[in-house]
Amino acid sequence: MKAALVIIGDEILSGRKLDTNSSLLATRLGEAGIEVARIVAVGDYLEEIVAELSRVVREYEVVVATGGLGPTHDDLTRQALGCITGKQLVLDAPTLGYIEERFRRRGLKAPADIRALAMVPEGCRAIPNPAGTVPGLAMEVGKALLYVLPGVPREVEAIFAGDVLRELHERFGEAPIRTRTLKTVGISESDISTLIADLIPNMGVRLASLPEDTGVTLVLTANAGTEASAQAALDGAAGAIVGRLGQRVYSTTGEDLHTVVGRLLLATGTTIATAESCTGGLVVHLLTEVPGISACLDRGVVSYSNRAKVELVGVAEDLIERHGAVSEEVARSMACGARERAGVDLGIATTGIAGPTGGSAEKPVGLVYLALAHAGGCEVARHVLAGDRALIKRRAAARALDMARCYLLSLS
Amino acid sequence: MKAALVIIGDEILSGRKLDTNSSLLATRLGEAGIEVARIVAVGDYLEEIVAELSRVVREYEVVVATGGLGPTHDDLTRQALGCITGKQLVLDAPTLGYIEERFRRRGLKAPADIRALAMVPEGCRAIPNPAGTVPGLAMEVGKALLYVLPGVPREVEAIFAGDVLRELHERFGEAPIRTRTLKTVGISESDISTLIADLIPNMGVRLASLPEDTGVTLVLTANAGTEASAQAALDGAAGAIVGRLGQRVYSTTGEDLHTVVGRLLLATGTTIATAESCTGGLVVHLLTEVPGISACLDRGVVSYSNRAKVELVGVAEDLIERHGAVSEEVARSMACGARERAGVDLGIATTGIAGPTGGSAEKPVGLVYLALAHAGGCEVARHVLAGDRALIKRRAAARALDMARCYLLSLS
Repeated sequence: MKAALVIIGDEILSGRKLDTNSSLLATRLGEAGIEVARIVAVGDYLEEIVAELSRVVREYEVVVATGGLGPTHDDLTRQALGCITGKQLVLDAPTLGYIEERFRRRGLKAPADIRALAMVPEGCRAIPNPAGTVPGLAMEVGKALLYVLPGVPREVEAIFAGDVLRELHERFGEAPIRTRTLKTVGISESDISTLIADLIPNMGVRLASLPEDTGVTLVLTANAGTEASAQAALDGAAGAIVGRLGQRVYSTTGEDLHTVVGRLLLATGTTIATAESCTGGLVVHLLTEVPGISACLDRGVVSYSNRAKVELVGVAEDLIERHGAVSEEVARSMACGARERAGVDLGIATTGIAGPTGGSAEKPVGLVYLALAHAGGCEVARHVLAGDRALIKRRAAARALDMARCYLLSLS
Repeated sequence: MKAALVIIGDEILSGRKLDTNSSLLATRLGEAGIEVARIVAVGDYLEEIVAELSRVVREYEVVVATGGLGPTHDDLTRQALGCITGKQLVLDAPTLGYIEERFRRRGLKAPADIRALAMVPEGCRAIPNPAGTVPGLAMEVGKALLYVLPGVPREVEAIFAGDVLRELHERFGEAPIRTRTLKTVGISESDISTLIADLIPNMGVRLASLPEDTGVTLVLTANAGTEASAQAALDGAAGAIVGRLGQRVYSTTGEDLHTVVGRLLLATGTTIATAESCTGGLVVHLLTEVPGISACLDRGVVSYSNRAKVELVGVAEDLIERHGAVSEEVARSMACGARERAGVDLGIATTGIAGPTGGSAEKPVGLVYLALAHAGGCEVARHVLAGDRALIKRRAAARALDMARCYLLSLS
């Protein structure tokens, strides 16, 4: 089952408004087993709307269009529906009543041109809009079941989740397309590709590889005969990939890295404190995104100045003098100091050069030392990370969280 | 001058990834006087990529495509370029050298399949990628100037802002379409609308209002005869809006709030420390996004546990017992303690209930106390913020930074 989306509106083409409807509709349709194969955005020009709609209703089983249903002069979608169906626009009395009722309920005066909102091609059905005034429209045209929804994302979501989804299930059944998201850290896309290349042709699932700022995400899609066979195909493929990539896969359910670390901390009852320099609080910010983390997280410090490193986590002044603030020794001292002062199980520390200035030949921008202090000692990792300041912070924070993750996995 | 965008990648069609490249490219092209008339997203299928690209290069003067240039099996854009031009893919030695050099500089091993990244159709030029490894490609095909960029938004932005924009200006001249972005905090979209409604018809510029998580962004667009008249129209409109909204406008150049606060700290030589509870390090993380901030930021603490509040910023235990950790009194004590211990000019503190649990009738989820300690005393603000945990953190951090901004503005 294939679908196309047609996003109508100058505000999208001009870049003034980010189109979030496509992503929402593609996700929801995918969950319903309907694969979106084409997304087109067109402006508020009648010929272009007509050209695109007439094309996709001939080629796809399902078409969802959004936008251009409002009352203003540049809302042309109704008229375009008339053109592609060859049907007259007629006043739909139930739709008019529905719209009038919505205005009444919200205590608003109906606009003068309210009747324009109730003009629909003959044979077109109105679809209730639980989140707004103007209903959606549905019709059979070409080989497609065509839905037209208002452009407001909240309304698109509400209309789709209601009648549209119910109709699609009735028409096409509930489909066994399922996806699974594997997330990795600390391994490049090309290394992943090398490690799993031979698996791909035989996995029976489709694999998409998405390089993101702090790691590579792999999305597996199974389109099998039944729910059970789809899940089995995904289980097999995910297992085979994890077999090759090992601990570089931190989630097989699409969770964020900090969510995984938070879950492991909570599950093992491990307490933690952080001492950050180059990451500037990002590690503790990410940990505190996790609900309930206050049970495990005692404190974090951002010891930006050398004095703060001395006062907050007890780094010895002469250690900084001898090795520099960005050094293995200072990272270790920060992690141990954070752990001891807070009286917790784990101390995480970061120190490095986030840039854009402050680098040297010996200690370039992107150089970071990350440390993890635990009952058995203290590990330090050195990386030279690429990117601008913000990206170096994010990558360093991810690597630091990953050290905690690997340690916690060995506990559980 | 009309352009089309072709966004290539299953991750967009499946809804797994929100397409932000279209909006970015449409905005930048619009600023260059080139109107995007069509945006199409297609999946990683060779025939579909070829069909769409061959269509748009016949119909538009400029085509920008993104995605599918990576090293994996589903990166098909190079091959598609070969199909639409009828040219052989050949190894481009300068491109190979460029990619190898990028890997060398980052100290990474080049992947085995690196040569695949340097295969381009004859007659195709490589466009340097300041933000990544794989260069963009440019070629003349059909009636179009076609650019193909990697799909990573950061890289799209960097490549476009560099060579692509320069080439477009050389080819088509610079157009007098200009935009200006005003950013606000602490005022609702409807209040803004009420305050400026009468200005809009007479401003001579188009206004778009974009509600975002921590404030409302206003985008002004002037399409005047000359650069000077466009800038004059924007100056007039921005001035009139700022006249109505006053300090609620924190930027007229699109800067982030933390960037504005960082700039004011650096410009006034004001030093600062933070003590955060509910925002969990987000305030100090945002401040440390600003290059050079180490001159002003001494330290930050995330005093999550009560013990940490006592130890790190000297909150009296009985103050917590009497008023609770989420209280005006504790916020004030945290801000003053952060300021005094670090020996800095300003102390910022946050304490509140980010949720999802921990709320009560008296102290609901979303309740936050924000404090700013300075030489003249300590201000405390109380807000009840809407949203989930992540949004409450972001909104609280923005309001806290805004207190510092207002104080710094009175200094400068």
